Amino acid sequence: MASPVTLKSVASQAGVSYQTVSKVLNGQIQVAPETRERILKAADELGYRPNQIARNMRAQRSHMIGYSWLPNSPDQINQILDQFLSSMVDEAEAAGYHLLPFPFRSGHVDDYRELINTGRVDGFVISSVEYDDPRVSFLMERKFPFVAFGRSNPGWNFPYVDVDGAEGFRQATKYLIDRGIRRIGVLAWPDDSRVGNDRMAGFFEAMKTAGLDVNPKWIERGEGTFEFGYLASLRLLDLPAANRPKAILAMSDAMAIGGIRAARESRLDVGRDIAIIGFDDAPMSQYLFPALTTVRQPIREAGRKCVEILVSLMKGEEPAEQHVLLPPSLITRSSA
Amino acid sequence: MASPVTLKSVASQAGVSYQTVSKVLNGQIQVAPETRERILKAADELGYRPNQIARNMRAQRSHMIGYSWLPNSPDQINQILDQFLSSMVDEAEAAGYHLLPFPFRSGHVDDYRELINTGRVDGFVISSVEYDDPRVSFLMERKFPFVAFGRSNPGWNFPYVDVDGAEGFRQATKYLIDRGIRRIGVLAWPDDSRVGNDRMAGFFEAMKTAGLDVNPKWIERGEGTFEFGYLASLRLLDLPAANRPKAILAMSDAMAIGGIRAARESRLDVGRDIAIIGFDDAPMSQYLFPALTTVRQPIREAGRKCVEILVSLMKGEEPAEQHVLLPPSLITRSSA
Repeated sequence: MASPVTLKSVASQAGVSYQTVSKVLNGQIQVAPETRERILKAADELGYRPNQIARNMRAQRSHMIGYSWLPNSPDQINQILDQFLSSMVDEAEAAGYHLLPFPFRSGHVDDYRELINTGRVDGFVISSVEYDDPRVSFLMERKFPFVAFGRSNPGWNFPYVDVDGAEGFRQATKYLIDRGIRRIGVLAWPDDSRVGNDRMAGFFEAMKTAGLDVNPKWIERGEGTFEFGYLASLRLLDLPAANRPKAILAMSDAMAIGGIRAARESRLDVGRDIAIIGFDDAPMSQYLFPALTTVRQPIREAGRKCVEILVSLMKGEEPAEQHVLLPPSLITRSSA
Repeated sequence: MASPVTLKSVASQAGVSYQTVSKVLNGQIQVAPETRERILKAADELGYRPNQIARNMRAQRSHMIGYSWLPNSPDQINQILDQFLSSMVDEAEAAGYHLLPFPFRSGHVDDYRELINTGRVDGFVISSVEYDDPRVSFLMERKFPFVAFGRSNPGWNFPYVDVDGAEGFRQATKYLIDRGIRRIGVLAWPDDSRVGNDRMAGFFEAMKTAGLDVNPKWIERGEGTFEFGYLASLRLLDLPAANRPKAILAMSDAMAIGGIRAARESRLDVGRDIAIIGFDDAPMSQYLFPALTTVRQPIREAGRKCVEILVSLMKGEEPAEQHVLLPPSLITRSSA
């Protein structure tokens, strides 16, 4: 039987030191691409298998980041998953970590507890965060490293990255007001939604700054779907002409597209008779007739930032910033 | 200093045997939910950390499945990622595995080699497969377990799951022919695309069966984007009336939506003057004006099946089937 291939034989074939091979294979140093290539080739040819698992055990680290997301129903848009996941995967890899995705089961933390107890992950990124989120309280209590994409209860202090939804709605509202529109309706999420309330705060503030009244009848709350957006917009557009909003601001593109359908059926010319603004900048929004004015979120930056902060926490370092609010941007097209 | 918490102390607190604790924490047996809960709670309270990593080392298994996907540019639709990933994550978990996502870098297999050499994964699922795919030849040569979502060179024998694109295009073409349409244009992918060629085969077959000629001028090849679909459709609709297709069959919904825009600009009523059919059933397709007729792929089933076959391979078993073709379904709406 052949003797086991050692780091030394790889080093000798690659013409570098034992230490260099070890550090390169452990991702602890950067070397010239040619050197790295030579070492990997030598390891490959000799059949060297450094056993990541044994290394992890010695380090008491899994180098894994747990992540779980709420899958959308197939008829709804998950516009951010690709960008959010791939930016996290890229950032994690650069820091020597991998992502460990696991099924989303809301309302309890069993999966989180088990991944911690079995040593499978060194930290978590959590998303779809809401008020009283049991994952946040559990992970804070366990003092286990995590970063939330989104905020929760105002009194809870934990590391998060969020898109500044208030700023997004402030911008969109101001844009409408600057164009002479005073009567603005909103398709909003239920008031137990933290994300929804942040956005509404931006709306209320922009209206107040302009000295405009908010008509509670013009705020419709429900799911972020096409169906809800369609039905709620029909209700708004059925109001007597003197008391009907001239613009509809929606919390998702799907809702806004429902609004466009409702406006068409009410024989209104979207962009002229009524302005409609969405939120998300879903890929298709630009191709609609009319193309949708919407609020775009910096998703890749959010994914990168979550992992960057988490890596510091997992290394026991103090991250430079633990509460990051990223500004969204209004993309103006012809629907408003 | 407290002595380390052992399996035995967990067993004693939970009131079960040492073996039961070990097997439950290793996922080797199913017990009553209350028993499981009691064991997890005891492990939790005592701070027992069984070290998954040490277990994996003894088993020489990582229980990880490597997966990498080609991220879409933000303005394009990745309609399948959420469904494909979450179905794989669910199926993997049920079999005691986790997914290990890593960045997609096309044209070389370094990431695959490194994940194998470092013992980080026990198998791969690969997607965006094309002809001469270097990942397929590399993994076949290494005899490392993998399943492809998609087919490659006809002569290569490897386990795959694919959606039957020929069947999808056959159905769509027949649907148009049955409605009396004889002149059918196609927005296709370049002919170095295996997926594209499979679909074209279904189109050619349906045309031949109906005794209809294919006009090579009516086949436009390019990227699966809105822009290409728009420009190529303008070219088709600019042909002299007697020699102009009455229907456009597209390989993606984005292309089809470009076609709808081109038809509108040519003052054609989509659904009456010209039929347009997409492929993907992207979430927004149903909300377009007119709603898009399109071909839907069984993505969740594909994800589940890929992992199911891979788990057999990783266990050294012979999977019941290694070449799975799933039928897509035509979703008829008002655009055709």
